[in-house]
Amino acid sequence: MCELLAMSANVPTDIVFSFTGLAERGGVTGPHVDGWGITFYEGKGSRTFKDASPSSQSHVASLIKSYPIKSEVVVSHIRQANRGEVSLENTHPFTRELWGRYWTYAHNGQLSDYEQKFQSGRFQAVGDTDSEQAFCWIMSRLVERFGESEPEDILPVFEYVAQLAEEIRTLGVFNMILSDGRYLMSYCSNNLCYITRRAPFGRAQLIDTDVVIDFDTQTTPKDVVTVIATRPLTGNENWQLLAPGDWKLFRLGELVIDFRAQAQLG
Amino acid sequence: MCELLAMSANVPTDIVFSFTGLAERGGVTGPHVDGWGITFYEGKGSRTFKDASPSSQSHVASLIKSYPIKSEVVVSHIRQANRGEVSLENTHPFTRELWGRYWTYAHNGQLSDYEQKFQSGRFQAVGDTDSEQAFCWIMSRLVERFGESEPEDILPVFEYVAQLAEEIRTLGVFNMILSDGRYLMSYCSNNLCYITRRAPFGRAQLIDTDVVIDFDTQTTPKDVVTVIATRPLTGNENWQLLAPGDWKLFRLGELVIDFRAQAQLG
Repeated sequence: MCELLAMSANVPTDIVFSFTGLAERGGVTGPHVDGWGITFYEGKGSRTFKDASPSSQSHVASLIKSYPIKSEVVVSHIRQANRGEVSLENTHPFTRELWGRYWTYAHNGQLSDYEQKFQSGRFQAVGDTDSEQAFCWIMSRLVERFGESEPEDILPVFEYVAQLAEEIRTLGVFNMILSDGRYLMSYCSNNLCYITRRAPFGRAQLIDTDVVIDFDTQTTPKDVVTVIATRPLTGNENWQLLAPGDWKLFRLGELVIDFRAQAQLG
Repeated sequence: MCELLAMSANVPTDIVFSFTGLAERGGVTGPHVDGWGITFYEGKGSRTFKDASPSSQSHVASLIKSYPIKSEVVVSHIRQANRGEVSLENTHPFTRELWGRYWTYAHNGQLSDYEQKFQSGRFQAVGDTDSEQAFCWIMSRLVERFGESEPEDILPVFEYVAQLAEEIRTLGVFNMILSDGRYLMSYCSNNLCYITRRAPFGRAQLIDTDVVIDFDTQTTPKDVVTVIATRPLTGNENWQLLAPGDWKLFRLGELVIDFRAQAQLG
């Protein structure tokens, strides 16, 4: 399948530590060698670095591991291809402009029998993955539901995305990260977890490579940083696991919506 | 103002030589220190590297100068801000998806009294430059004229873009590069030139820094490579100057439409 990584922070923060762990899974400690990508938001702007080669060997990934880009929202993905060949146009994250913001999306999982559901709307896929088609379908549905301008209250937009994600989950595995540059949404189909780091900060040790960081030396007491990943990236911290159907919405590192599917059933 | 650089080639070709010359103009031989960007198409996919810092000092620009990415279409821009602050969201090139392709655009010039004309349509600007608003206006007009699916014959699309560019030129200076990943269009308002290199290849010497290349060692006899720039990048080759109102359409390095405004008046 693939692996996801994302970050939401209340101050511009670099993700070099977490990305260093993830990149190892692209060819060293994991089989996700079919491309990788990472999107950094800086204010309303965003930039995406991507490569169809394995993250553990990519020149561009080496830059990301050595050059700290400070960002409040990051979305990243390493790919093990199932639907769609290995190519740049099939490499996540995908970005589209809606309502004057860049929306960025990455997917882990695999869908079946989706062609009819995802028939082209206003947003069209450039590559041939199930993932990008699902993204374009979600974005097209948002325009149908909320119109041509951004609604004053954005939270119902993410609640609607969660409804759409529930529909998509009936077609297979759909772990998803979505951001408009302010909010960061994670939707869990089977594998997704997160950790929120805040003072007092401690040391963290990567699972995939022998790197330790002392966050206390890198942060101020006011910093709040949430990291989301398919599987925990560190071995000495308490990652919160999401259950199937759970979704979380973060802003500036803090949890804004904490939807638990189990609680709804109980 | 700014400077533009673009390339169309019939084989995947790296633009390290030309970009090395352009990047010098971002702080060393030129005043364009307010950001830079470069978009590479690889098949239908594209990736954009951009930075709001000067190209002559940027870590990311160093990567582009040292790591040859082979591409059939490249669009690049170095910025000297006039409209819109120095920020990532105001950094060219800009990209939007239309008809299942990524369209990439960069602008050199400055417009006035454009707010009413460029009022938001289906595509909306994320930053606050005149350039991005003009791009979104063009893209919105393409949907109005040609509908939701790509027309079978794409050439009328570029002819219509040229009409729109003529309209925009009445508001100021509008030198433009636009590509859908196959075709590369250049529209001239005052400063734009190009060169088509083909066998027999020779040596070329950059104007802005002491670099010489022998294309003969880098190419095969079948290669055709067109480079477009605001001002010639080499001192020993014959660059073709575009006149105001001229526009050119290239595909695979070859000139497909050669529109000369003078010829139309004569």
